[in-house]
Amino acid sequence: MPAPTEFLEYVDRNASGFINRLKEAVEIKSVSSDVSRRPDVIKMGEWLEKQLQALGVTTKQVDLGKHEMSGHTLQLPPAILGKIGEDKSKKTVLIYGHYDVQPAKLSDGWNQEPFEFVEKDGLLLGRGSTDDKGPIMGWINVLEAHQKLGKPLPVNLKFVFEGMEEYGSEGLDELVIREAQPGGWIHGVDCVCISDNYWLNTRTPALTYGLRGIDYYGITITGPGQDLHSGLFGRTVHEPMTDLIKLMGSLVDVNGGIKVPGVEELVPPPTEEELQLYHKMDYETADIEAAAGGPVALSQNKIDVLMGRMRYPSLSLHGIEGAFSDPGAKTVIPAKVTGKFSIRLVPPQTPAQVEPLVRAYVEQQFAALNSRNKMTFGSLHSGSPWVADINHWNFRAAHKAVKAVWGIDPDYTREGGSIPVTLTFAESLGVNVLLLPMGRADDGAHSTNEKLDRSNYIEGTKMLGAYLYEVAAESSA
Amino acid sequence: MPAPTEFLEYVDRNASGFINRLKEAVEIKSVSSDVSRRPDVIKMGEWLEKQLQALGVTTKQVDLGKHEMSGHTLQLPPAILGKIGEDKSKKTVLIYGHYDVQPAKLSDGWNQEPFEFVEKDGLLLGRGSTDDKGPIMGWINVLEAHQKLGKPLPVNLKFVFEGMEEYGSEGLDELVIREAQPGGWIHGVDCVCISDNYWLNTRTPALTYGLRGIDYYGITITGPGQDLHSGLFGRTVHEPMTDLIKLMGSLVDVNGGIKVPGVEELVPPPTEEELQLYHKMDYETADIEAAAGGPVALSQNKIDVLMGRMRYPSLSLHGIEGAFSDPGAKTVIPAKVTGKFSIRLVPPQTPAQVEPLVRAYVEQQFAALNSRNKMTFGSLHSGSPWVADINHWNFRAAHKAVKAVWGIDPDYTREGGSIPVTLTFAESLGVNVLLLPMGRADDGAHSTNEKLDRSNYIEGTKMLGAYLYEVAAESSA
Repeated sequence: MPAPTEFLEYVDRNASGFINRLKEAVEIKSVSSDVSRRPDVIKMGEWLEKQLQALGVTTKQVDLGKHEMSGHTLQLPPAILGKIGEDKSKKTVLIYGHYDVQPAKLSDGWNQEPFEFVEKDGLLLGRGSTDDKGPIMGWINVLEAHQKLGKPLPVNLKFVFEGMEEYGSEGLDELVIREAQPGGWIHGVDCVCISDNYWLNTRTPALTYGLRGIDYYGITITGPGQDLHSGLFGRTVHEPMTDLIKLMGSLVDVNGGIKVPGVEELVPPPTEEELQLYHKMDYETADIEAAAGGPVALSQNKIDVLMGRMRYPSLSLHGIEGAFSDPGAKTVIPAKVTGKFSIRLVPPQTPAQVEPLVRAYVEQQFAALNSRNKMTFGSLHSGSPWVADINHWNFRAAHKAVKAVWGIDPDYTREGGSIPVTLTFAESLGVNVLLLPMGRADDGAHSTNEKLDRSNYIEGTKMLGAYLYEVAAESSA
Repeated sequence: MPAPTEFLEYVDRNASGFINRLKEAVEIKSVSSDVSRRPDVIKMGEWLEKQLQALGVTTKQVDLGKHEMSGHTLQLPPAILGKIGEDKSKKTVLIYGHYDVQPAKLSDGWNQEPFEFVEKDGLLLGRGSTDDKGPIMGWINVLEAHQKLGKPLPVNLKFVFEGMEEYGSEGLDELVIREAQPGGWIHGVDCVCISDNYWLNTRTPALTYGLRGIDYYGITITGPGQDLHSGLFGRTVHEPMTDLIKLMGSLVDVNGGIKVPGVEELVPPPTEEELQLYHKMDYETADIEAAAGGPVALSQNKIDVLMGRMRYPSLSLHGIEGAFSDPGAKTVIPAKVTGKFSIRLVPPQTPAQVEPLVRAYVEQQFAALNSRNKMTFGSLHSGSPWVADINHWNFRAAHKAVKAVWGIDPDYTREGGSIPVTLTFAESLGVNVLLLPMGRADDGAHSTNEKLDRSNYIEGTKMLGAYLYEVAAESSA
């Protein structure tokens, strides 16, 4: 059952209103990993709840309690639960999204204030435009269209929106597991749809059936009681930076190979059938280099690049907290430094398997340094990888919706990123989970100059609506 | 000729006024390496000039022109030249100091706002209290005492104060060389006294006859066009941080040994006579660990620690610009990162000798990585090391002044830090240069909670005055 023409026309007619809705959302600085921004994250949750209520959604704010961050005890942003429609003859689709965003500063290299929404050259620019406020607004646009048209939705909808996804979704797993129980808010849904990832390129819509997991680590080296003058203390004391740089340098090689013994070995080689999937994908090395903005691909072989992103683990060194990081020349020996890095995990790797391997390796490497400084190792957050069945009706419905709106067949992809709650939904609800991306590979999520193409936002809104009609038409058999 | 009692008594009687003078100076945020603070540096120079003029000093502001910093073109803070007394029968002493300071943020770990002056438990706390505003105020206190007492100074004085010492003394060398010529402001002085370093410990005053030089470097790695999401791009592209960490890790070993071929080899082994000087020094490993605030000395042997600081080069890794440096967990692949490190040089090393060795080594190490990223290497600032003759009357006068005020003989030390202009004074004026420290080893210059002991400030003011009387008494023969 394709989406009715009046719905599609409504979306075109009201595009500018939909863009204003996204502007409002982007301009709320809901950075979940920044202590000083926590009130903005909570404000964003309340803004979102009002939007839902105005469109006839029954909502519930769930207090997820408090947590420790950077030495502060903070209130977690609420989870916003919603439901609309209770028609037993219709399927019920669970929608997930997150209303928090990554940090962003003009000085990171943005061409604009990151939290000032800009529409320019067919792009909708601003932090969160594509990750994940655009897709959330897409769902709200679908609700608005049906309310204004006086049309019932083809399915019942349940919503779970959180405000801590960019900081490890604290508190969410417990909530999902609890509400998935009989009598719970999301018990009995027929499938899950998450729109929080991206096309493989800038041309071809995608359906995503796998995600890498993540384990994000910190190595902290301490020794001196305070920062020291390198002239007065250079070559008299063990310098924490010297130790930390050695440890960070021992984790990964220049070609991305992970040097922690046992981590790569957990991953089986690809099957012939799997390799065929990669051969089929609409992709060239030029795509990754266009998206990355430079000729820096690790391989000129399309399959290597795709598998490096989708089905092999990766280790990235993100930075150092406590060292000199400003412009200029400060002759300091930092007293306490924390190196941040993360490993993206693939099936069958789990944080529980990998974390002890990394800890043991880092401890052994540090012991070998014979430094008199102290080292502590910890995991800041983690999530397991996930893979879904692409032959399920949920994927079939999404395939038809993509074909109907975009006129082409989607790529079937696995994603390099992590949305830990995906696995929690799959396991606690026991239903098929679909990732239905709205944005493109070059949107710059987690990066500078984040954008969502206007066409992806507007056609994407149509696609989300069309998906609901195709789900309604599918036999659940 | 010891300092007259009335001078010493005036200093004791007016201690609180002297402390207020230091408070005013500390609370001007004259951070020379921070673009946004440049107006405060200039304000500090003007404040200092007014102080000198009020005490009868003839002054001249010298415009040192503009320079490039962090992508901005900035006016350099002025050099403040001063002179008082033109009695041909008296010696003329040139005094140098710098009125700029190192960066400081509460978040670096200060127990107070770094630019709010605090007097507590016999300590004068605040950025710049010991480096170098305390000593400059000491000289001004000496001028005030003689003006108020209606006493002529025992010598003629010339002053050179600059506002860029913490950023490489830009523009100063040219000025000093020019003004040292016949007819120049500082031509014909008999000796130079610089108070911009520290005692070796917290007990024994010191006279310093050597300084390490410095060459401060940056390694910049670029590749991607913008910061990337580690989930989307991890294991698909060459990550600049991975390359940079490998290069930084190849520079120095955990025990402080410099791994750049040829750099250590430039330094001759110590002579027997030299070793005796180190044996005599009032020093224990406990002193360095007390000053460093932790049990992190590279050696338990006093001689090793002293020579590591005074007569061997050191290499310190200061930090990385462009990487993730905030609290929290950001899953970013930084697109452009600059690793900052510096080498402290000792005779006969010079930046001109060492910089090509470091460049060649870094370029060779980077080439060996076979990365598709780009690397650029540069020197941010540099200065040569320096050693003086401790048998000169300038040192003899200072020895007597220390003995008179503190009641003990000073240590004869070489300093690990760098004051590049020292060498410029020595070479352009052809006279003896003395470093006469006011502060202690644990003052925390360039570090958090910088302080100057009240006793070092007040007795130090007496010592500076006494030194001028002893200089006057010395035969220049």
